[in-house]
Amino acid sequence: MVAAPSVSSSITARLEVPPRPTLVSELTTTIERAGGIVTALDVTASGHEHMTVDVTCATRGEDHAAEIVEALRGIAGVTVSRVSDRTFLLHLGGKLSVESKVPLRNRDDLSMAYTPGVARVCQAIAARPEDARRLTIKRNTVAVVTDGTAVLGLGDIGPLASLPVMEGKAALFKRFAGIDAFPIALDTTDVDEIVDTVVAIAPVFAGINLEDISAPRCFEIERRLRERLDIPVFHDDQHGTAIVVVAALTNALRVVGKAIEDVRIVLSGAGAAGTAVLRLLLAAGARDVVVADIDGVVHPDRPGLAESLRWTAEHTNPRGVTGTLVGALAGADVFIGVSAADILTGDDVATMAADSIVFAMANPRPEIDPDEAAQHAAVVGTGRSDFANQINNVLAFPGVFRGLLDAQSSTVTDEMLLAAARALASVVTEDELNPTYIVPSVFHPDVSEVVAGAVEKAARAHAERPS
Amino acid sequence: MVAAPSVSSSITARLEVPPRPTLVSELTTTIERAGGIVTALDVTASGHEHMTVDVTCATRGEDHAAEIVEALRGIAGVTVSRVSDRTFLLHLGGKLSVESKVPLRNRDDLSMAYTPGVARVCQAIAARPEDARRLTIKRNTVAVVTDGTAVLGLGDIGPLASLPVMEGKAALFKRFAGIDAFPIALDTTDVDEIVDTVVAIAPVFAGINLEDISAPRCFEIERRLRERLDIPVFHDDQHGTAIVVVAALTNALRVVGKAIEDVRIVLSGAGAAGTAVLRLLLAAGARDVVVADIDGVVHPDRPGLAESLRWTAEHTNPRGVTGTLVGALAGADVFIGVSAADILTGDDVATMAADSIVFAMANPRPEIDPDEAAQHAAVVGTGRSDFANQINNVLAFPGVFRGLLDAQSSTVTDEMLLAAARALASVVTEDELNPTYIVPSVFHPDVSEVVAGAVEKAARAHAERPS
Repeated sequence: MVAAPSVSSSITARLEVPPRPTLVSELTTTIERAGGIVTALDVTASGHEHMTVDVTCATRGEDHAAEIVEALRGIAGVTVSRVSDRTFLLHLGGKLSVESKVPLRNRDDLSMAYTPGVARVCQAIAARPEDARRLTIKRNTVAVVTDGTAVLGLGDIGPLASLPVMEGKAALFKRFAGIDAFPIALDTTDVDEIVDTVVAIAPVFAGINLEDISAPRCFEIERRLRERLDIPVFHDDQHGTAIVVVAALTNALRVVGKAIEDVRIVLSGAGAAGTAVLRLLLAAGARDVVVADIDGVVHPDRPGLAESLRWTAEHTNPRGVTGTLVGALAGADVFIGVSAADILTGDDVATMAADSIVFAMANPRPEIDPDEAAQHAAVVGTGRSDFANQINNVLAFPGVFRGLLDAQSSTVTDEMLLAAARALASVVTEDELNPTYIVPSVFHPDVSEVVAGAVEKAARAHAERPS
Repeated sequence: MVAAPSVSSSITARLEVPPRPTLVSELTTTIERAGGIVTALDVTASGHEHMTVDVTCATRGEDHAAEIVEALRGIAGVTVSRVSDRTFLLHLGGKLSVESKVPLRNRDDLSMAYTPGVARVCQAIAARPEDARRLTIKRNTVAVVTDGTAVLGLGDIGPLASLPVMEGKAALFKRFAGIDAFPIALDTTDVDEIVDTVVAIAPVFAGINLEDISAPRCFEIERRLRERLDIPVFHDDQHGTAIVVVAALTNALRVVGKAIEDVRIVLSGAGAAGTAVLRLLLAAGARDVVVADIDGVVHPDRPGLAESLRWTAEHTNPRGVTGTLVGALAGADVFIGVSAADILTGDDVATMAADSIVFAMANPRPEIDPDEAAQHAAVVGTGRSDFANQINNVLAFPGVFRGLLDAQSSTVTDEMLLAAARALASVVTEDELNPTYIVPSVFHPDVSEVVAGAVEKAARAHAERPS
């Protein structure tokens, strides 16, 4: 699995070149021989003696970009005057802005949006706190909360360095669900401090999206926040992942004609994502799930079983499987990996039942090369955008929060997550369904609305139920 | 001082009326007789038997609006079908939105703004934390922090009810200085918790604007935050007020031809605003300031003097004045009130020196009716928009933060506040200066830029000075 050049690592090089007829083809040929892909070429200045040319190309990363620039320098008469990185250019000044929705053109506008008019609005909310959802941004506002301890695959890089991800997340909330989200990157990794801080800043928010907080702290943070807050607390790494996995599995099972109640599922990974996927699989009707972590299959008698795995051990593995992940895979219908790179081979997948399903979602390198898995499995999905069936959280969290906010929900339950998963699966019609299209594109226009509708309905039903 | 009808309390009444020729004049006359001011009248539907008319008028407040509606109901044949309040209409859904500054049209966009491209930006910041100001929203982002304990003149109405003010403040930050501000309304009034919370959420912000936090807690919160944070902490109720007062005084003294070093100043109010005004007056060169609070003139031997007034007692009152505020006023050149309504009369002002200056800034009712003060003083200012010389914090805080952010300042000093005050005063040219124009309009196009430039210069000088 060699990474292809990616737009996410594209550069623009400004070159001073002599005006010879072969020059453009020399440039493109040089870049292509060096493994880059030219995506744009502009002459920005021209004269009798030389021209200035901006050439943009996708690369495989920073080292590769340096190789390409070196190759360009090797062309006779060419000088490289500047190299800029498109991803960094896009990040200059950050990715979000806070805008006023009301005009402030003159004193009359000021007197309504600010003093003295605003005082009457404040008094109305003081008298009826529930009016805050009508008269302030609370109704549509979500906090994206992290402590920077488990950012992407980068690990504990701290709150400042996590900001580009949190800003990106907020941008996605706006783009896909019209939600106003704001990044809260916490300068503490202490569970008590995180919980107290989020509780303290909660009034302006109608929902909390936890993000990239390392396990097992994330479980306790989520649990305690849910106890103390009257707004929903969602941990995208857990619940978002669980929703898209169950949606993808629902459709993959439609493809192979099997029922979730009947299949054997092997789940690799017992961390934040794994545990949430497991819970939602069980809620969706799965009966035979075997969970494995770095120490092998989880079962109640495993020596030194961590306390955090006790619940898993007691709620899975009805056939009492022991031993290794690879051993457990034999005869299984479904493999779901939310664990580590390159832990399976094609031969391992070959031991699975006929018409097997493989979701290898470790990022950026999956548990198995998806091309190799596809030699033996009927349906293969990954977390990557450069293979079919990208199982991507962006399919879930915008619609989930849209539904929660529209229902003014005070909580988020497994029932709502399951409703989201089923709604997401339903976006793929019978006519569209095939082994390489089990989840819709993140740009599918219906995704967020369908998921939101299902979550809102489940949340309203929950609110109306006598507790 | 009877309040005039205000747009901030304007209503739109939808009326069903018979189509008689005198009807429009009946409506306007009725509203005007009831003390309202008609600002718009639209026929929204018409028929042979009746018409639907929307009439909008400014009122003196909710009770007055109800009287006007009652008067309209008294007109023969008129039915009031709906009354809406323009200020509440403007607040529906809140006043802010969070927008993405980057396009998210397709997968290439996603791959740069989010995974996988964003990972390289995160790594760059992890390696060089100072790059967060270049590659994230931090550079231009300010927290508007309150606990809701001293909101406008409304007192302790809590965090939720404070939100319309904090949102308005954030809207003003954008409108007047292009700053992205976000409301943080805290669900705690405990000083330790407030400090810990603000420290915990600080990474995404380049400045903290404290707002409407009651004294004396606000002093300790500000002090401790300044100790713990490497970004400037500004308390608008203190420092913003101090800047505009010193700017207004600078120009009022230009009008009457007196020097700040020579004048006797009486300052009414020793709370958050009063203390900050005092400090900046002294920094600006004032030598003879007498401070009075509800217990009279502050001096070192006053029985039961509160510990928080010790500094004030030791740094003011060089002539050893004792007794009441009114007594201290005799012979004074300047009165500055940041205290309570209706504590002075015209006769009191008459005892001041020739060409006296009166700033009566208690809100919404000043220390003295400004019209009455103007019978005896050469220059009168208030905090209200319906009198000349509105001494309004909006003149200061946007430009101050613009300058602090542009200098990437880690602090805010009295020197920077004084630079802001002098810059603000300088916006009023010699040609413009007169007793009713000592401060520019908040909509004056130069205010924010001139203040920002002065603050940035002072902040850069501070940063370069060996500490």
